[in-house]
Amino acid sequence: MQVAVVTFDGFNELDSFIASALINRCRAGGLEAFLTTPTPRVTSMNGVEVAGQRPLEFTAEADVVLVGSGVRTRDVVADGRALAAVTLDPARQLIGSQCSGALVLAHLGLLRGMPACTDVTSRPFVEALGVTVLDAPFHAEGNIATAGGCLASQYLATWVICRTLGEDAAREVVDYVAPVGEKRQSVERALRAVRSAEPARP
Amino acid sequence: MQVAVVTFDGFNELDSFIASALINRCRAGGLEAFLTTPTPRVTSMNGVEVAGQRPLEFTAEADVVLVGSGVRTRDVVADGRALAAVTLDPARQLIGSQCSGALVLAHLGLLRGMPACTDVTSRPFVEALGVTVLDAPFHAEGNIATAGGCLASQYLATWVICRTLGEDAAREVVDYVAPVGEKRQSVERALRAVRSAEPARP
Repeated sequence: MQVAVVTFDGFNELDSFIASALINRCRAGGLEAFLTTPTPRVTSMNGVEVAGQRPLEFTAEADVVLVGSGVRTRDVVADGRALAAVTLDPARQLIGSQCSGALVLAHLGLLRGMPACTDVTSRPFVEALGVTVLDAPFHAEGNIATAGGCLASQYLATWVICRTLGEDAAREVVDYVAPVGEKRQSVERALRAVRSAEPARP
Repeated sequence: MQVAVVTFDGFNELDSFIASALINRCRAGGLEAFLTTPTPRVTSMNGVEVAGQRPLEFTAEADVVLVGSGVRTRDVVADGRALAAVTLDPARQLIGSQCSGALVLAHLGLLRGMPACTDVTSRPFVEALGVTVLDAPFHAEGNIATAGGCLASQYLATWVICRTLGEDAAREVVDYVAPVGEKRQSVERALRAVRSAEPARP
């Protein structure tokens, strides 16, 4: 199973790398994440240049698509051309967003009839698209999830692992990456966030 | 004030990017982090290629040096040539390590007389260098700090920000990056970890 972590110029390293690093701990289990970028190289909001691992067209074949966040997401949505290469199918794929990534999901009509999580900066822009924003780090309905606050990206990854490989695999990953001495609490917190997920609304 | 985030080939994205992204939220306050690498480009343990922002020689002029972790730290320490370009001065600099980065600090003699934090995988190798490993996410004495468990890198960043710009600045950064709905608890947890720091032993 392949996971596209959609990452635009100006991206927030926390959002793309926490999700991808957690998911990539499951490569032996058959789950692998790829930085999926509009151009061969993208530069983060802090000037770090990274090479993309897959083009945006990879979203069409990925089993899971997570849309990261960054300082230029509003430009990406306003431009529209960048999103022309993004193909999402919530009937077949798990789809998630981190912080301003919710703007992309909203723009593509994927948040109709469900509330969403995002960061405090993006919140008014997500609300302007008619989406109710929750005071929570994570919300999922059916195959669509949103997370808010950079470090909530661990919950997005936990949800992906739970939904693809099961809770035991997710528990193992969060346990490994959690601070020493805080592993039990970290696992419980992540699973609690993810257990709030609801079935898809009819 | 400039922070070198030392990042070798095979690096763990969580360790280098969580610390650098949190610290870079303080650029307006005069604190800036740079991926500091032995070669112009390095590739992460998950195959992500990133461009370094500073060469290892930058460690000599940086005000803070954080040594990240990865799957090849033992090779780096065994080889020794990679470390020839790393210049550290605990009298003048804040110096920290994340997970297997403790091997580098131990190898350079910086952990003499103090215990350290590291991850479960690196623990026996750190202990083999004569260092006592704590069951804790973070430990600092004087200008030297170590953190264990990938996500404890947020504590390393919190310590750097507390020591350079003060607790209010650290509080603001952790509040911003924390999951929505968990901000107060996240700030308290990070500050509690950092407050365990001790003065340098005589």
